[in-house]
Formats: sequence, structure tokens, C-alpha cells
Amino acid sequence: MLQDKNPSKTDLSQLGEFGLIETLTKDFLIKNSSTIKGVGDDAAVLSYKNKQTLVSTDLLVEGIHFDLAYFPLKHLGYKSAVVNFSDIYAMNGQTTQLLTGLAVSNRFPLEAIEEIYEGIKLACKIYDVDLVGGDTTSSRSGLILAPTALGQIAKGKEVYRSGAKPNDLIVVTGDLGAAYTGLLVLQREHETFKANPQHQPDLSPYAYVVERQLKPEARKDIIKILNELDIIPTAMIDISDGLSSEVLHITKQSNVGAHIYADKIPIDPQTVLTAEEFNISELTAALNGGEDYELLFTISQKDYEKIQYRKEFAVIGHITDDPGAYLITQDNQKVALKAQGWNALKK
Amino acid sequence: MLQDKNPSKTDLSQLGEFGLIETLTKDFLIKNSSTIKGVGDDAAVLSYKNKQTLVSTDLLVEGIHFDLAYFPLKHLGYKSAVVNFSDIYAMNGQTTQLLTGLAVSNRFPLEAIEEIYEGIKLACKIYDVDLVGGDTTSSRSGLILAPTALGQIAKGKEVYRSGAKPNDLIVVTGDLGAAYTGLLVLQREHETFKANPQHQPDLSPYAYVVERQLKPEARKDIIKILNELDIIPTAMIDISDGLSSEVLHITKQSNVGAHIYADKIPIDPQTVLTAEEFNISELTAALNGGEDYELLFTISQKDYEKIQYRKEFAVIGHITDDPGAYLITQDNQKVALKAQGWNALKK
Repeated sequence: MLQDKNPSKTDLSQLGEFGLIETLTKDFLIKNSSTIKGVGDDAAVLSYKNKQTLVSTDLLVEGIHFDLAYFPLKHLGYKSAVVNFSDIYAMNGQTTQLLTGLAVSNRFPLEAIEEIYEGIKLACKIYDVDLVGGDTTSSRSGLILAPTALGQIAKGKEVYRSGAKPNDLIVVTGDLGAAYTGLLVLQREHETFKANPQHQPDLSPYAYVVERQLKPEARKDIIKILNELDIIPTAMIDISDGLSSEVLHITKQSNVGAHIYADKIPIDPQTVLTAEEFNISELTAALNGGEDYELLFTISQKDYEKIQYRKEFAVIGHITDDPGAYLITQDNQKVALKAQGWNALKK
Repeated sequence: MLQDKNPSKTDLSQLGEFGLIETLTKDFLIKNSSTIKGVGDDAAVLSYKNKQTLVSTDLLVEGIHFDLAYFPLKHLGYKSAVVNFSDIYAMNGQTTQLLTGLAVSNRFPLEAIEEIYEGIKLACKIYDVDLVGGDTTSSRSGLILAPTALGQIAKGKEVYRSGAKPNDLIVVTGDLGAAYTGLLVLQREHETFKANPQHQPDLSPYAYVVERQLKPEARKDIIKILNELDIIPTAMIDISDGLSSEVLHITKQSNVGAHIYADKIPIDPQTVLTAEEFNISELTAALNGGEDYELLFTISQKDYEKIQYRKEFAVIGHITDDPGAYLITQDNQKVALKAQGWNALKK
């Protein structure tokens, strides 16, 4: 006999939109003095005085950016916030506010939406961001998250993609390719589970790469360090689509070229092992995998000594006069970089 | 034999995300001095100096908020922008920037997305708004628009929902109920068309109500008039969910009650005729229909003489000390207002 396994779940239609918003947002505290009025009116009111405002939006769509079969809802909420914060840091800014657009189908009870908001709340807490608004509505099928992040930056300190100059050094934070190999692991475990629901996955050998996929962090810490080191990058972007795609954004918008050295690209040992298991090159994961949310930036050579002993940074190449962005392989081959990161519109 | 009826349509996957964004945004001009950097970087950069920033987001979901069977894509783009502008005006603010999140399935070619952007562009032009960013991605099924609007307001002039005081007058702009009766007409014509594809609908008797549904306007003009009349409403909200729901928002957030007089609610004659045709009360359309995007606000009685001869405004009731919001009918019955506007999460 079929049983209702979740007798305590709360149907969204009982609450209505406004009850839902109240339930979801009541525990969010205001932390930024720039937040004059948050959730609960037609618009949020923000006051930045002499700072510039930064604003960015990034959608997360079920079946395209995540599969709920292996993506916990709380992590999804967290990630939806963090990927938007990452865009603010990529301008050299500080995140201050968040709005969350959410479209859900009726298959989600209140408790599922609350899980998503738990993740958003945790991200807001860790990154010192105020939730100030949003819109919650129904969808016919999938779950869609549409957050908008706001931030601020002192005038003259904003960093665009377009400022890279010939001979600038190309720097990347953290390590690359882990989030993509983590995705491969999760997809494989899900297939195994479908074939055999008794299967208990052991993800411990993949803990790092899986966490990079499910719970990425944005590099707020790097913005603080750059400020302390008195470095304003000449260009900066976050790595959401893969290193190749991001290098090409910078070279195109800055009207320059780039040489990236394959043996300089930082890759975690677990990423290497996992990539081997899936018979792909770890370099492919780093170049095209995306979703690492590390920062890629260029600096003037005079700033090199400020970062040379910092473990957060790896110098992976330099900007060239000649157009064209190339990977220089370990055997000294010169391979043109291609943007393969984003194929969400491929059929 | 099956033929490709649209040989000239451009597949989105040929363009990729960045090609698509470039194609869509190249003709948008910057008009606001507060827009420092628009589309094309990780975040937009805005500078408001001594003004407060306003920000609001409203999702439009296929199958919930619109049906593409009768909703032209250009109108949809226009409406998605305007409903967000309306939230900024409802704070007494000026709209300045827009970000457009867009999730589309592969069934849409480039030309369809361009149609949506044509509508967004027209709205930006008419309302003097700069498109400064967004995110375009794929969806598994429906079309989802997730715009975020930004605006500004001089400090101290922002109008919340929470400021209504006992004896304040309740004022509404324009007329109500038309958008909902327009929707009923469109839905009926669509059903007729499905039954008989040769059917040529004659929408001319319904031109006004259909336009109110398909191409609503936000009341930017009212904000200008209020400023000229030196009126700062004590509370304000835009009518997206229906008059009942919006009155209840104001009374709840202001801790007051309200009396609304049925015979004072402005309703267009075409709305009355169309409602009759569908055997519904025009009052129901006005109270619960929603999507009129008129402004509902409260003013101190001392401001009454400033608006009494202005055709843009109708005084429909007053704020009371006693809690509870009531409709006073023509035969002097007192009926509690209920928020029935939003049922997108109903099964």
C-alpha cells in the first residue's frame, strides 16, 4: 500500500505568497548600515553614500545547473547566493545585500523551500550580507533560483575585465577543476543508485571535489588580502565557466592576448586522481569545467613581489601584445584556448 | 512531408551565451548618469551620490503569469520590465537601471529572444531606464523572466506601506479590473482558436481591457505629479495582486484599518461590459483581479484639496483606527476584504 511518508509536510497553497515570505524571512537579521529597508515593501531601500553600488544576477535552473537527485536543497540555496556574491568580489567589491527570486512547483512543500532558505541564510551570515527582497512564485515544472546580489566599492577601486595590459601577470586563486570532477562523481553515484537503490555510496575519497561542487565558496578573503597588500588588479573575473572562457573574456575586453602555462595551473591532488578515474585530463577539468568560483586577475609586474610568497595565489601566465590566448603545454606546444565552458543552450 | 517553416531562424546553441548577450544588448544606450558600467562585466557599477538606492525583483513564469498562446513575446518583455518599474514608483522613486534574468528552452530561436528584448528595450526607452546586466540561460521547459529594477529616491522622500494613519484618505490612480477582464477575453479567444483554427478573433470591442493585460504601464507620471503637487503619500503600494490584497498590505503593515467604498472604485465602462459578458461582477475584477499596476496610496486629509480636481486620482475610502479592512457596498453592507489575488501556488 502507498503511504504518505511525509505526513507533517506543509502544503504551500495553505500559506499563500505572503505567509510564505514571512515564514522564510523572519529570521534574517540586518547587518549592513547601507540597508535602510529590507524585505516587506515594494522595493528595498539602500544607501551607499560615497560608494559605488555593484549589482549582479545569476540564475540557477533545475536540470541545467543542478539535479535535485544529488543536490541537497540547503546546499542549493547556499550556492545560489555564493555564485552571485562571487560576481561582486570579481569587481573588487564588498557584498552587502541579496534579493532572492524563487520559482517552485507544487511538488515542493514549505519544508523544502525552508531548506533552500536555510542555505541562503547561512551564506548571508558567513558573507555578511542582508537579504532585502525577492519574489516567490510558482512554476509548472522545475525549480528556478534567480538571486540578485548588491555590493559596494570605493570610487576608483572597481576592477573591470577590460584593464589588462601587455606584460601583466595572470594570477589565479585556489585550485581549479575540482568542482567539475566532483560533479562527475555525483552523477556516477546517482546512476549507480538508480540501478541499485540499496547501494550506499562512499564519497569519502572524493570529499574535497564533491564539496567544491555542492558547497562552493566565493573568495571574499582574497578581496581583503588584495586590499591589505595594496594591490588593485588591472582586470579581474570569477571562474564560473572554466579558466579558458574567463581568460578569453579578459583578453577580448582588454584587447590583448595571453599565454597560460599548463604546468602552473593549480590543481588539487584529489582532482587529479578523480579525473584519472574518469579518463579525462585534469587540465581539461581546470580549463573547461567551471564552477570553481576562484578569482582570475591580472596585475602589473611591479606588484609581483607582494604576492610571490602568498599561498593563496598562483601566477599562471602573462598578458601579451599579440592578440590570441594560448595554453603553453609542458612540451612547449602552443594551443589556442577555446571557451567550452558554457553549453547550457546546446541541444 | 514535414517542412521547416522557419528556415531563417537562428539556433541559440550556435551563438553561445556570450554571443547571445552581445546580440541582445548592443543597441541599448546608457541614459542615466548614475550608470557607471552596464552590461558586460561581472556586475554593473552604479553611483547614486546622496540618493537612496531602490531595488526590486519580480518573476514572470510561463504557464503561471502568461501563456505564450496569446501573449506576444515583445509585449512579454515590455511587461516584465514595467511590472518591476512599478515597484520602484510604489516607493515614490525614479527607475534608473534594469537587470534581466532569462531562462529559455531550446524551442526558442534567437529571433524569439530578440522579440522579448525588443519589448524590454522599448520599456527602457519610455521609462528612461538603463539595462545594466542580467543572465541568460537554458531551461528544461518553460520560459522564465527574472528582472531586477533599481531606482533612486531622495532621502526622506521614500514611501513605505507602513505609514498610513487613521483618517488618512485612500487614493487610487486610473481604473481597476481591466487587466483581469482582458485576460478572460484572451483565454476565451484562445479556446475558440483551439477548437477552430480558422477562427479570426475580433478583439476591437475589447481593445482597452486586452491592452491593459498585454501591455500594462507603470505610473511614472503619477510620481511626477505627486512631486509637483508637493504631496508625499503616507503609504503607497502598486496594485499587482488586486485592490483587496494591497489594501490589506497597507492596513497590516501600518497597524490600522480601512473602509473602501464600492461606488468610489474607478472602473472603465469596457471593464463593466466585459465583466458582464463573463458573468462576473466588475467589482470582483477590481478587488481581486490584479495586474492593473495602478498606484494605491494614502494621504493626510490636509492634502485633499491638492488632488480633488485631478482626474488621475480617485479617493475610494479612508483609514480607520479600528483594525480590519472593509468594503462598504452601495447598500451600506460592510464586507471584510480578503486577499484572493495571488493563487499561483494553488494546486
